[in-house]
Amino acid sequence: MYPKKFEDLILAFRKLPGVGMKTAERYAYTALDWDEETVDEFLNVISNLKGGIKRCEICGNLSDGDKCSFCADVSRNKKIICVIQKPKDIASIESIQEYKGVYHVLNGAINTKKGVMPEDLNIDSLINRVDENTEEVILATDPTVEGETTALYLQKLLENKTKVTRLAYGIPVGGHLDYTDSLTLLKAFEGRK
Amino acid sequence: MYPKKFEDLILAFRKLPGVGMKTAERYAYTALDWDEETVDEFLNVISNLKGGIKRCEICGNLSDGDKCSFCADVSRNKKIICVIQKPKDIASIESIQEYKGVYHVLNGAINTKKGVMPEDLNIDSLINRVDENTEEVILATDPTVEGETTALYLQKLLENKTKVTRLAYGIPVGGHLDYTDSLTLLKAFEGRK
Repeated sequence: MYPKKFEDLILAFRKLPGVGMKTAERYAYTALDWDEETVDEFLNVISNLKGGIKRCEICGNLSDGDKCSFCADVSRNKKIICVIQKPKDIASIESIQEYKGVYHVLNGAINTKKGVMPEDLNIDSLINRVDENTEEVILATDPTVEGETTALYLQKLLENKTKVTRLAYGIPVGGHLDYTDSLTLLKAFEGRK
Repeated sequence: MYPKKFEDLILAFRKLPGVGMKTAERYAYTALDWDEETVDEFLNVISNLKGGIKRCEICGNLSDGDKCSFCADVSRNKKIICVIQKPKDIASIESIQEYKGVYHVLNGAINTKKGVMPEDLNIDSLINRVDENTEEVILATDPTVEGETTALYLQKLLENKTKVTRLAYGIPVGGHLDYTDSLTLLKAFEGRK
């Protein structure tokens, strides 16, 4: 029904997650009305995907250059490494303005069902990075089956080299006992002090 | 929090309609995982926006070349012109496999609140297009205040030149009387035969 090039535009937008035919059509119509400046901007950010957006060579975080802003920041404590699944988690941790160490981004978690094995994750560089100067590795993977598996795996690998901790489980602040699922409640009991 | 270039990518995706911060982030992360082929494809369809996707010089429909597929098709009856608001409407009308005439895309409807006046629409070319050979102009604008205003405006302009018709209003097939809004019901009564 549509001309070939417009059809191609719709199909390209469909590659975005959760975007079906209707939404892709809507995006394509919006794009048609963009002025040349906006189109150029879009072309620019998309071409940045080819090498412009890098991974930090130390921690695997997204970065403009070879090192990410945290690894390049001399004021951060390089002796404490917080291990997370994805770059986005950094934003959550930074928002509490408490943590002053550095990060290590795994880019996922072990998931045997989906075939994600340890060697697919950014684990080798973590092992190489941890040395006698490292004071603590904080495992902050998600509290899911995959995140737990990954945390256990890393703990085994690292516990002889340095102190390894895991974020505390428990009832969320402001939460109610009767709305807390039983697994969380169990963990809250186990972790009581 | 994110490196500049990744932040730019997120901001670019936010220009799509209905896309907020969370969705844009999700799109940006997905885009990061694209292989070079997909990135090139995206670059290609976006650069097509600069002149690659044209408007048919006769009817204003989206087109790869100077004429759209309907205006270029010799089997379509050029004496009957169906006036619609947007290229997407063509798909709906074609799906009934009944209409064999050609189209005219207004690219919107008169909307005094939003400042869309007749001169902002693709109306001049419609007036020039209608001549003594034209047998019928079917006004198929949306049954909204704006669509109605536009249809009335066009009817006044064209009724001395050719036969002008408007799509019928009424209860949708398979609909129920008690679920039909009163305006539609009123129109159904007026249009009874």
